[in-house]
Amino acid sequence: MALPKLRSSLPSIRTPNFWFLLTIQEKSQLTENVLIVGSMALDDVKTPFGEIKDALGGAAVYSSIAASYFAPVRIVGVVGNDFPEEHVAFLSSRNVDLKGMQRAEGKTFHWAGYYDFDLNQAHTLETHLNVFQQFRPVIPQEYRSSKYVFLANIDPELQLQVLDQVDKPKLTVCDTMNFWIDTKKEALLEVLKRVDIAFLNDAEARQLCGTTSLVKAAYKLCEIGPKMVVIKKGEHGALMIANGTYFSAPSYPLEEVIDPTGAGDSFAGGFIGYVAGTDDISHDNLRKAVVFGSTIASFNVEDFSLRRLSTITRKEILDRYNEFRRIAFFE
Amino acid sequence: MALPKLRSSLPSIRTPNFWFLLTIQEKSQLTENVLIVGSMALDDVKTPFGEIKDALGGAAVYSSIAASYFAPVRIVGVVGNDFPEEHVAFLSSRNVDLKGMQRAEGKTFHWAGYYDFDLNQAHTLETHLNVFQQFRPVIPQEYRSSKYVFLANIDPELQLQVLDQVDKPKLTVCDTMNFWIDTKKEALLEVLKRVDIAFLNDAEARQLCGTTSLVKAAYKLCEIGPKMVVIKKGEHGALMIANGTYFSAPSYPLEEVIDPTGAGDSFAGGFIGYVAGTDDISHDNLRKAVVFGSTIASFNVEDFSLRRLSTITRKEILDRYNEFRRIAFFE
Repeated sequence: MALPKLRSSLPSIRTPNFWFLLTIQEKSQLTENVLIVGSMALDDVKTPFGEIKDALGGAAVYSSIAASYFAPVRIVGVVGNDFPEEHVAFLSSRNVDLKGMQRAEGKTFHWAGYYDFDLNQAHTLETHLNVFQQFRPVIPQEYRSSKYVFLANIDPELQLQVLDQVDKPKLTVCDTMNFWIDTKKEALLEVLKRVDIAFLNDAEARQLCGTTSLVKAAYKLCEIGPKMVVIKKGEHGALMIANGTYFSAPSYPLEEVIDPTGAGDSFAGGFIGYVAGTDDISHDNLRKAVVFGSTIASFNVEDFSLRRLSTITRKEILDRYNEFRRIAFFE
Repeated sequence: MALPKLRSSLPSIRTPNFWFLLTIQEKSQLTENVLIVGSMALDDVKTPFGEIKDALGGAAVYSSIAASYFAPVRIVGVVGNDFPEEHVAFLSSRNVDLKGMQRAEGKTFHWAGYYDFDLNQAHTLETHLNVFQQFRPVIPQEYRSSKYVFLANIDPELQLQVLDQVDKPKLTVCDTMNFWIDTKKEALLEVLKRVDIAFLNDAEARQLCGTTSLVKAAYKLCEIGPKMVVIKKGEHGALMIANGTYFSAPSYPLEEVIDPTGAGDSFAGGFIGYVAGTDDISHDNLRKAVVFGSTIASFNVEDFSLRRLSTITRKEILDRYNEFRRIAFFE
């Protein structure tokens, strides 16, 4: 049996490639800003491939750097006086506006955890909220009209405070985690009623909806509130589901995942960054955004902390996006 | 936020639709036959949605009926003298040639099992091999030149006996199960060396290759022998992997699975049936075959035994195939 390679029947990409050719400065003139609120952290992470200590992390940081490949970012979070100036300089250099970053007396939020060979499951060793314990998000006046808002994984009560401070964004997206389903379910349900798109992983969707069927869970979530649900399935890709529409995105076939920390954050950040960068919330464009988010997340897990996430080139992003297209293609 | 429905940007289907318009008799003139060897059974199955007793089943039966939607089938298996004549008549009526079906003194192979609400896992209550214990596949002379051969899930030693009796098929596909990985690994590895495409589910691929990474498992399997591996992932769809190519097919979003028995068999049967019906082993066509296999399997699990599998219309198949295209579509 001779198996020919995939024919050239794959239609050529219709993504606005021109956008990738712009410099960050040019882009900041052209595209909408993304407002991102969430944790900024220093993490200790151990995986079968090594370990790092006090490395830059946090949901808002991962998602901001991911989004910054597509649009200028405004970050709202808090750091302690141990937060290295090099991290501040790095974020600024990536067109992440820091006017909304609070500096508080004390230590930065610190997470320590490890992953076994089954890299799907994070095991938490320590969580020190530190300055995050007293954090109340204050959205600077000039941020309040941001058309694109991402509520990264934090206490849903804080997410509600953010929603109270912004003026009718064009698109509001939230993320969450099992901890808030266990401890702040009512507030989380209130957030879900007020956002356009909710991101959850498969276990969280099943837990929140009390069903083993992901399909049922997704439809139930859409009944609760958000117009759309994006379910992250790790090595199985992602689903984007709304009333009447269903999109299944593949995952990228990585042989080695070095450090899964921030995969979900960089996925959501890449998603909203791409939507803001193109300022297009059509269903077709949201599908592309899911795949650009998957693309960014697939790079993120190739190294510890933000090492890989911070060094991706535009050519690498487009090449891998096209690989995703080949992976999913059939006529 | 207004979310428009998917634009009409989905390219029109290039599947050879004409084929669906032919009658079974016309098709038998035009297309290649599929030879299918495996179990023919009477099953007791219980799921949260009901139960059936002594219902038609077996890997060769499910895969033959699935394949029969696309090409004429030649079945090789064994039944006992309790096998109802109505099942024989049913198979004949579906253009399944029964010259290779042996009738033996004793009872037909019998499986009894149940599924909990997590319908991914079958729990076996009883397996009575009965006449299957003495079964030795004998391939009738006129079947030996079949261009398409499917070794459904049976003892790999019997699969090897089939391979010894056929003349250079154009495409040979095998399926297996965890039981043979545990008890007949050497014979199974020998089968894998001699077939073109191996079908396994995700747990079997991980078990056989000793790795949690499906990607690593798939590449390792391709090193063992088959030119391609198809990994069935249930609610997460399927992967088709060869050296240098990687295809991810979505699953169909069923809210209720009534009876998962035969899902893998009907998937593989639909796959090889479509390839034989089109007589085209190009990579693009194999991708379509994976999706047609998924289409048939998604119908099969909508009811017990072969109730749904035996009543699908051509229009339903094409409509659902097009739904799969919409589910996976992005530009």
